[in-house]
Amino acid sequence: MAASMFNGPISRRRLAGLLGTAGMGAVGVALAPGGVDRGSAAPGLHPSQADEAGHGAHAGHGTDAAATGDAPAARAATPSAGGTPARTSWAEMDAMHEAGIKAFPAPTAGLGGQLLPYELDGDVKVFRLECQFTQWEVSPGEIVEAWTYNGVVPGPEIRVTEGDKVRIHVTNRLGESTAVHWHGLYVPNSQDGVPFITQPPINPGQSHTYEFQIRDGNAGTHMYHSHLNAAVQVTKGLLGAFIVEPKDPSTRPPFDREYTVVLNDGPIGGFSVNGKSFPATQPLTAKKGERVLIRYMNEGLMIHPMHLHGMAMDVIAQDGYLLPQPYRCDTLNIAPGQRFETIVEATELGVWAFHCHILSHAESEHGMFGMVTALIVEE
Amino acid sequence: MAASMFNGPISRRRLAGLLGTAGMGAVGVALAPGGVDRGSAAPGLHPSQADEAGHGAHAGHGTDAAATGDAPAARAATPSAGGTPARTSWAEMDAMHEAGIKAFPAPTAGLGGQLLPYELDGDVKVFRLECQFTQWEVSPGEIVEAWTYNGVVPGPEIRVTEGDKVRIHVTNRLGESTAVHWHGLYVPNSQDGVPFITQPPINPGQSHTYEFQIRDGNAGTHMYHSHLNAAVQVTKGLLGAFIVEPKDPSTRPPFDREYTVVLNDGPIGGFSVNGKSFPATQPLTAKKGERVLIRYMNEGLMIHPMHLHGMAMDVIAQDGYLLPQPYRCDTLNIAPGQRFETIVEATELGVWAFHCHILSHAESEHGMFGMVTALIVEE
Amino acid sequence: MAASMFNGPISRRRLAGLLGTAGMGAVGVALAPGGVDRGSAAPGLHPSQADEAGHGAHAGHGTDAAATGDAPAARAATPSAGGTPARTSWAEMDAMHEAGIKAFPAPTAGLGGQLLPYELDGDVKVFRLECQFTQWEVSPGEIVEAWTYNGVVPGPEIRVTEGDKVRIHVTNRLGESTAVHWHGLYVPNSQDGVPFITQPPINPGQSHTYEFQIRDGNAGTHMYHSHLNAAVQVTKGLLGAFIVEPKDPSTRPPFDREYTVVLNDGPIGGFSVNGKSFPATQPLTAKKGERVLIRYMNEGLMIHPMHLHGMAMDVIAQDGYLLPQPYRCDTLNIAPGQRFETIVEATELGVWAFHCHILSHAESEHGMFGMVTALIVEE
Repeated sequence: MAASMFNGPISRRRLAGLLGTAGMGAVGVALAPGGVDRGSAAPGLHPSQADEAGHGAHAGHGTDAAATGDAPAARAATPSAGGTPARTSWAEMDAMHEAGIKAFPAPTAGLGGQLLPYELDGDVKVFRLECQFTQWEVSPGEIVEAWTYNGVVPGPEIRVTEGDKVRIHVTNRLGESTAVHWHGLYVPNSQDGVPFITQPPINPGQSHTYEFQIRDGNAGTHMYHSHLNAAVQVTKGLLGAFIVEPKDPSTRPPFDREYTVVLNDGPIGGFSVNGKSFPATQPLTAKKGERVLIRYMNEGLMIHPMHLHGMAMDVIAQDGYLLPQPYRCDTLNIAPGQRFETIVEATELGVWAFHCHILSHAESEHGMFGMVTALIVEE
Repeated sequence: MAASMFNGPISRRRLAGLLGTAGMGAVGVALAPGGVDRGSAAPGLHPSQADEAGHGAHAGHGTDAAATGDAPAARAATPSAGGTPARTSWAEMDAMHEAGIKAFPAPTAGLGGQLLPYELDGDVKVFRLECQFTQWEVSPGEIVEAWTYNGVVPGPEIRVTEGDKVRIHVTNRLGESTAVHWHGLYVPNSQDGVPFITQPPINPGQSHTYEFQIRDGNAGTHMYHSHLNAAVQVTKGLLGAFIVEPKDPSTRPPFDREYTVVLNDGPIGGFSVNGKSFPATQPLTAKKGERVLIRYMNEGLMIHPMHLHGMAMDVIAQDGYLLPQPYRCDTLNIAPGQRFETIVEATELGVWAFHCHILSHAESEHGMFGMVTALIVEE
Repeated sequence: MAASMFNGPISRRRLAGLLGTAGMGAVGVALAPGGVDRGSAAPGLHPSQADEAGHGAHAGHGTDAAATGDAPAARAATPSAGGTPARTSWAEMDAMHEAGIKAFPAPTAGLGGQLLPYELDGDVKVFRLECQFTQWEVSPGEIVEAWTYNGVVPGPEIRVTEGDKVRIHVTNRLGESTAVHWHGLYVPNSQDGVPFITQPPINPGQSHTYEFQIRDGNAGTHMYHSHLNAAVQVTKGLLGAFIVEPKDPSTRPPFDREYTVVLNDGPIGGFSVNGKSFPATQPLTAKKGERVLIRYMNEGLMIHPMHLHGMAMDVIAQDGYLLPQPYRCDTLNIAPGQRFETIVEATELGVWAFHCHILSHAESEHGMFGMVTALIVEE
């Protein structure tokens, strides 16, 4: 399965189309093309969503549409008293919230986590990573100086199979030394990426080559990231997913599509999912009835309990290792360095919010931001 | 079982009585009526507690009573040097600690989490929630402006059964828009409570009606809370427990009584258990040998590892879902958005401290506060 | 097994010797005696480590040695423009990082967690703890005023067996009252150590005696610590491990050696492992093929997800209780008050970094510090 199939960019047009097909008019409107004036104090009214009630196999109990009627005249901004700083009016707050939703998924430059191609040298898969300064658009118009592998956050996804021989050339174009740790992989000590313990640091302008064979039993969701000045380098973007597929796929639970969800936080990029802040995050999509594998990894400095609306998750693996007893939850607490694999049975139609439940990582008075995306289940 | 049975207020008089019956003289003294001058620099001495040693089935090894004798003359406050700000003396610290314990459970106005009554419309259970500004007494004399459902924090507990049809009318009397998310429930997408994705926000002065049927398999401990400006609205009090009982009680472990423990934190209410800060928190009580179901839910922005003294907890469910393999612990880490159900076998007599083990959420130099309560096991 | 066997100090000389024996020249060099001028802007170059590649059973894929050659001339410090404060140059950063590694394990005064001896009074094991002010060397030259049991951080380890009768005399030589809670143990309520609930506080200059019998079924990793002004007293050092061995060792998974890893954080001691900050932390050592029991306990105010490089951990017990289904991970999230027991199969040779994965608890621009140590696996 090509990574571009499940990690590819999803345009607002495509999302609007999907939703239109599914008959979700209201969301379709929210996602329809057209600029939103974020500064407007008197935004266009949101259309009644009474028509969206009752769809889906389990609805059957109509919304009290009368009570959800069109937005009232009170939506106009509350004027502030002259001379005192105005608190944002509720109508302004709503307008900012709405603008964020309407913009989702907002186009930004750059998309991380795409599959890293390799060359074969005999039976060795040869990958190349270059540590770079990158102007990275975290959310529309918010551009930060990220430190990246190959110009993207997260770095490109390395995906191999148990037993594979792997060689990775790393070149450092940054202003300080670095080194790469293969977090979760069994590697010879000399390849572990810890400066002055297992190798000299990779100085600016220099290169270093890592080489190891993927051990049987080491399948699962792993990571690669800097291990030098890492509190800075990793939160600035020197991180990526390292996925090891099992030689025998029947050893792991089956799934129909998969997503990797890389969590990060830090003073530069803020709260992000796969290198982007809402509304620039990419939604996950599934067709009804599919089993969706979601691979989580936390590259930040804080915990992030990820909450999926609408459907539970079966937690099947931790740090790559299959759990002897999977368990079910809807809010999965992920600490820095941890990875989890979950299977979601996409049984419920609709656009389901999916966010960190530390609410201050996901929403402010100005609307949703940061660690927010959605799972979209369509017919 | 009526919610008022297990969530009802427990007066200091009743607690003193329980303890007196159980022969815990020392604690009885600590909880006896009588004012405590918190500002006193020379508080009354704490009586010797030598007489409390040796009770309980497993004691059998008497305290070295000689070493626990009456408090010494040194208990008088240490005077501070003139001109320099005085550090609180240890005797003053002890007096403040003692005053807190003696006040527990301190009477305050308002008690949240009581069962929400409903009306039947045919076979639909109809509930009503009103979002209000409420002057809420978090601890004695500490009154904050909470944003509440029906005037209490936590909001009233909604309790239904798998298969029930539910309709909930929400009226917004606040100064900004809101919406209600049914955290943990399988609902049609249109009823999920996410503004601009699944519904328009409920503007000030407006109402909205949610309606759904509780899915079989969705029993357990869930929550309802605001999903608009939620980092503010939820920490200010717009939250409550949504308990789904199983159609067939034999599908879940048996218990003799149950408690719901709602954790919250935030700039308004501070660290709280069921909307109150120690010493205004309500203790949990049990008779020796009972199996006590404790339902935890974290509505705050931080983790809270809850530590029960004296007895272990069997964790039986996470986010409402029964664990295939329950496990035992005495400190349960609960992240925002998570719920856990635990069974405590109340085998140990006495008053057992029960608190968040992030100690700064539970104690200061001025005594215990915030996320502290007790489990009281009596004969 | 004597505690001194597994908790004894490991000198730099011994570590260098172990590593030399194992043929890890580069690390041997890194750890060789010799002063490092931390202030030097032009440190000695790190030798090529090309010779360390390829050892270990699973290597077999040589490092691209050409790319790892000696550090370049660019290593010299970047001079700063006069008048503006100079940002640390990458070469200075590397030198500070290297100095930390070379110093590891750095000698400091004091070693906590050593086995606490006891006297027998009939069949009662009698222990003595004295709460003291202690000048404690957290890392080389960094001396803080700790509050300790018997002059060390962590306090001495209490180690008994299920069924043991235990008496513990506590004397308070501090400037404020205290009390000791036996976190995780089933004790009579009167022995639980909560001031004004189960006992009067132990005032400065006073003593108190605790006495209880270890309950069958209460084996495992527990703690003792202050329960008065505990956010201050515990983070300052009033804490220790309380290990209960099973009467029948066959009831728990076998192991060849064991370590206790006490995590702490706070304004006084900072981020520490067993009372020390890297490079003053003690490494764990094992011979290849051994099963190493690692007992974790978190006495701080923050979570600490501990990440072991190179090998996975099997989590066998939580809060002392055997898990019905052990699970495997490489990053274990430990919340305040929690304990975990893990077994590591020491299959991989080398020096493996072992640290909190909240990277800001483990590394700064000045190098690794705080919650960092290593697991050293030798032939």
